[in-house]
Amino acid sequence: MRWDLPTPGFSFELLAALGHARAGILHTPRGAIETPVFMPVGTAGTVKAMTPDELRAPPLDAKIILGNTYHLYLRPGLDVIEPLGGLHEFAAWDRPILTDSGGFQVFSLAAINTVDDDGVTFRSHIDGSEHRLTPEVSMRIQSVLGSDIAMCFDECPPGDAAPEVHERALARTTAWARRCRLAPRANGQALFGIVQGGTDTARRLRHMGEITALDFDGHALGGLAVGENLADTYRILDEVTHQLPAERPRYLMGVGTPADLEHGIAAGIDMFDCVMPTRNARNGYLFTSAGRVNIPNAQYKTDAAPIDAECPCATCRTHSRAYLRHLYLSREILYSRLATLHNLTFYARHVRALRERILRDGQRA
Amino acid sequence: MRWDLPTPGFSFELLAALGHARAGILHTPRGAIETPVFMPVGTAGTVKAMTPDELRAPPLDAKIILGNTYHLYLRPGLDVIEPLGGLHEFAAWDRPILTDSGGFQVFSLAAINTVDDDGVTFRSHIDGSEHRLTPEVSMRIQSVLGSDIAMCFDECPPGDAAPEVHERALARTTAWARRCRLAPRANGQALFGIVQGGTDTARRLRHMGEITALDFDGHALGGLAVGENLADTYRILDEVTHQLPAERPRYLMGVGTPADLEHGIAAGIDMFDCVMPTRNARNGYLFTSAGRVNIPNAQYKTDAAPIDAECPCATCRTHSRAYLRHLYLSREILYSRLATLHNLTFYARHVRALRERILRDGQRA
Repeated sequence: MRWDLPTPGFSFELLAALGHARAGILHTPRGAIETPVFMPVGTAGTVKAMTPDELRAPPLDAKIILGNTYHLYLRPGLDVIEPLGGLHEFAAWDRPILTDSGGFQVFSLAAINTVDDDGVTFRSHIDGSEHRLTPEVSMRIQSVLGSDIAMCFDECPPGDAAPEVHERALARTTAWARRCRLAPRANGQALFGIVQGGTDTARRLRHMGEITALDFDGHALGGLAVGENLADTYRILDEVTHQLPAERPRYLMGVGTPADLEHGIAAGIDMFDCVMPTRNARNGYLFTSAGRVNIPNAQYKTDAAPIDAECPCATCRTHSRAYLRHLYLSREILYSRLATLHNLTFYARHVRALRERILRDGQRA
Repeated sequence: MRWDLPTPGFSFELLAALGHARAGILHTPRGAIETPVFMPVGTAGTVKAMTPDELRAPPLDAKIILGNTYHLYLRPGLDVIEPLGGLHEFAAWDRPILTDSGGFQVFSLAAINTVDDDGVTFRSHIDGSEHRLTPEVSMRIQSVLGSDIAMCFDECPPGDAAPEVHERALARTTAWARRCRLAPRANGQALFGIVQGGTDTARRLRHMGEITALDFDGHALGGLAVGENLADTYRILDEVTHQLPAERPRYLMGVGTPADLEHGIAAGIDMFDCVMPTRNARNGYLFTSAGRVNIPNAQYKTDAAPIDAECPCATCRTHSRAYLRHLYLSREILYSRLATLHNLTFYARHVRALRERILRDGQRA
């Protein structure tokens, strides 16, 4: 089954389902994205430590990466990216890019001055300068960035906020989603809505109804894995995800561990992003088919084995744990490169293996 | 003309000469090295920010890299590198490696406790631990590292040291060279002697006589570009280099700028190493055919041009100055990678162009 999405050039193809889990293809003007998919995070116009060539090369073969509106707006700024022709040209990345709205970073990184019904005034975490984000400003920034998928600007209250704070944030997020839906977009730029509502199932489902009524190209679950119990995350995933419209892609924002991805896919999620593989790599935590390797551990001092003997990445085909440990302890740049390549390859293979299982064991759509 | 060197498996082939400048090939058991050659510096078992694949790939195509005995001995240490099979295996580098003796680093980085006729006792710049290097210890370390070319352990007095300090250092360096010549080496490991003597031509030539009498596989000029006037450096190069035996490779240690390399080649030098291309890259200084680019400069803020339009490296084929400036200012790891690749490619092309000129305009040997 294949459904056209509201934005011309985009369609979503469902190939197979296994329980709530789905295998499909998100077709975009810049190429097809096999789903479920993990999107490496390219915060500041670079997936940290990686070249575009490395991201594209199998077995990593990233079909889509994420860019952060908040970071790119503050540095280098639109006065650089616009004359350079947008984020794809600027970063030399020719495959799809999804940009977030800046909402999550404003609420987690910046010093908030005021939040009102129109938007958010905040100070940059880089230089303290004052800025204002509104739904329209976020959409204008994402339009200049020229991402293939833009996200609605939303309010992200802390996970432990009082119910009335949550309710006010939900009402604003819906009102802001309507304004984002009406704002101008770049040519060939899809827009996803974001369902908030914390860990209260009824609230989530109510907000889901408000967002899905707005005819977005896809739907995201936001505000999960932001400090709540993992059991609550999984409960919301289990109770909400499969009720999202089947004919649109579903995106779980900012999640998570390999086990989280497996749980999300089982619940019906199609798209993921997270800094975990890249950030953990730089901090010495490597994912393997036999569990995590904490590379500074003394046990790897003379270990001639690769990080993961089952991994086909260039790092595992070429380098020993002992060498990686030495590079890590010596703070060598090469360490971050090799570790990032491995962790991203692990995530890509993990999600692809789950996709293969759905295609093999599931029902053809 | 081709001469066998004292160590089996090594020979030096002279192809052409233009004045004192020479184009040749240093044949080693691990492959042929076209000379003049610039050797990227791989201090701690990695040319900073680069993979072996990148170093080997044209147009950079590094035929030999340098490893630092002092750094590798302190970290990861021989108790790691020896069981891993030596430096080539450890760092996954299958082409030739030249190791220095540790002398220069002991005298420039470590806290010296004592220098006597037998060797040097010093404290590690990493953890303050006490160690002792002697000619025999340096040779044993280089033997375990398994480099293709080892260097004699020498005393490196400061450039402004008093004449009697220089004389004592010279006498020790000659005595230590004799001891290095007698010390066991790895299979297929050549040994170069080092000519010291500061900026006094007569002293240099006298020491040259002492060192060249010891039948080393090649000869290095040490103790240049260590703070003296450039005019003095060039004078010594001009007056000494061509008097070194023509049938052995000549290596100018730790030098220098592109202009220094050109001057050294004109004087008859065959081999160079320097941290300048790699370190300058990380600090924002990029070499181009039209002079240096200081990438943080505001003039590059929206500059869509590559670092050097004439450069065939992947960085210049792919990325703009504006993007590199953004990565530099954002302290992104990718910046160091792209900049290092470019600067090393510039050095490699610079030296290769000079070699081509010698082959084209010089006299066939």
